Amino acid sequence: MMTTVTTDQDLYPTRLAEPRPPLERPHPAVWGTAGDGPFSQAELDAHEERGFTVLDRFITGDEVTRYTAELERLSSAPDLQDDPRVIRERATGDVRSIFAVQELSDIMDALTRDERLLDRARQILGSDVYLHQTRINYMPGFRGTGFYWHSDFETWHAEDGMPIPRAVSCSIALTDNYPFNGGLMVMPGSHRAFVSSVGETPENNHESSLQAQEVGVPSEADITLLADRYGIDQFTGKAGSALWFDSNIMHGSGSNITPFPRSNVFMVFNSVENALVEPYAAPAPRPEHIAHRNFAPLTPLT
Amino acid sequence: MMTTVTTDQDLYPTRLAEPRPPLERPHPAVWGTAGDGPFSQAELDAHEERGFTVLDRFITGDEVTRYTAELERLSSAPDLQDDPRVIRERATGDVRSIFAVQELSDIMDALTRDERLLDRARQILGSDVYLHQTRINYMPGFRGTGFYWHSDFETWHAEDGMPIPRAVSCSIALTDNYPFNGGLMVMPGSHRAFVSSVGETPENNHESSLQAQEVGVPSEADITLLADRYGIDQFTGKAGSALWFDSNIMHGSGSNITPFPRSNVFMVFNSVENALVEPYAAPAPRPEHIAHRNFAPLTPLT
Repeated sequence: MMTTVTTDQDLYPTRLAEPRPPLERPHPAVWGTAGDGPFSQAELDAHEERGFTVLDRFITGDEVTRYTAELERLSSAPDLQDDPRVIRERATGDVRSIFAVQELSDIMDALTRDERLLDRARQILGSDVYLHQTRINYMPGFRGTGFYWHSDFETWHAEDGMPIPRAVSCSIALTDNYPFNGGLMVMPGSHRAFVSSVGETPENNHESSLQAQEVGVPSEADITLLADRYGIDQFTGKAGSALWFDSNIMHGSGSNITPFPRSNVFMVFNSVENALVEPYAAPAPRPEHIAHRNFAPLTPLT
Repeated sequence: MMTTVTTDQDLYPTRLAEPRPPLERPHPAVWGTAGDGPFSQAELDAHEERGFTVLDRFITGDEVTRYTAELERLSSAPDLQDDPRVIRERATGDVRSIFAVQELSDIMDALTRDERLLDRARQILGSDVYLHQTRINYMPGFRGTGFYWHSDFETWHAEDGMPIPRAVSCSIALTDNYPFNGGLMVMPGSHRAFVSSVGETPENNHESSLQAQEVGVPSEADITLLADRYGIDQFTGKAGSALWFDSNIMHGSGSNITPFPRSNVFMVFNSVENALVEPYAAPAPRPEHIAHRNFAPLTPLT
């Protein structure tokens, strides 16, 4: 079947009335070349193929200590107790995520504009970039609950109005990731398949979806299809390692009953040429702290 | 401190009013020697040290197919729909475990008396053995919920009246165990530490504890202590591999959001010299299908 691509057509239809098979994505994951930044062409090719890249010792041990202290400070800051940027576990009230951390913390703001990040994000996306979303995720020991399988882009497209998957996420581990403490699972190569979901997006879906997603969830049939086609890899590694991953890769995490918590800083860079429009499949855009609408290019620290 | 061992004293006190630190266990894990069976002395020494032994390709692929078909037959057998031996998930009603499978199935009965098992169980325990408990465990894909950290012996002692940890379990994988589909985690060497739990055992505790344990659970402080002292290993391997593990080893499993289910046959061999008495810390013994009281030595298939 031929697909005619026009600028008016939604190439990534989702939140549908009926299931439809995964689509082959027409856009690349990597838009730049070796000349544009620190990744070699082989690294860029691997990223295009698998949809993710792991960089060990991406930040130093001192930096891990500093960002962890900042996470702890933000988690217990009295003036953030009822802040909408702080998402808590439904059952326990523990902090699960803190959004828009660059607004809350100078050292997090500095991290998002660090050249180690900015140069790589620009290289992958082949343009200037801005921050679409940032957060710190905290999965406690003993009762961490994980995130079910999903593509970030499916949600960003449907609920935030991100036109195409020209965004890349960088997750920096602040704790050691073992195979058994709820580490992120990815399906290598699955970023090439766009999996639509079934069901209309309710109003204010984000108020519950950040605790436990109910809409925008791929079907078990599609998860099985993708797992059989692409397999499953786990992101393990020492604190300080970084995972760069495409906005459309299928990923999820299990629970954590070990005493070892798992936390990370998560930053999403979007191409300035891919700025948000109206949501493709939701009654209204999500709030600014979840999906930023300041499309000004990020500038390096000076 | 010296511990005076007398036959009247309970060396494994649990379900206490107040927490107390883990005890160094006075009894060995391995009671036999290399001359008594198929394990070499090096294998027995490693089992004594770590509390578990993994044997790859313990049964054949044909056997895996046969036992899997039997699991499926038992799970959907009309006459077992309301049988107390069938334990279901609280949320979904899916079959989670089937107990006393040797009573329900000739081929499972044959497996429990297979010389590959019986010779190893007798060698580890240094005596004739009988079946304390058997079950098939089934963890579905997408929503498998796992078992929190526990020592089997803590429950068998408190609720079944098993005097000392002179019992060994054999778990045979009927599906491939990956690091990410809820595989069993063990703390190597933790079988040497007896971790008491706090809280009185309610009547008929087993009616809920087999779905989600609430009493007999180690404290987070003790789990942290043991994880720091012993570390955590995961049982991964192909379908057909076997894990032999001491009755007192600290173990647990996380959830499973992958499409890959995880099922196994689980058989507990107890020494005939360690036959059950009255429960050490429960109002009444658990039912026969959970803790067998037929102490006649198992005889090999002829």
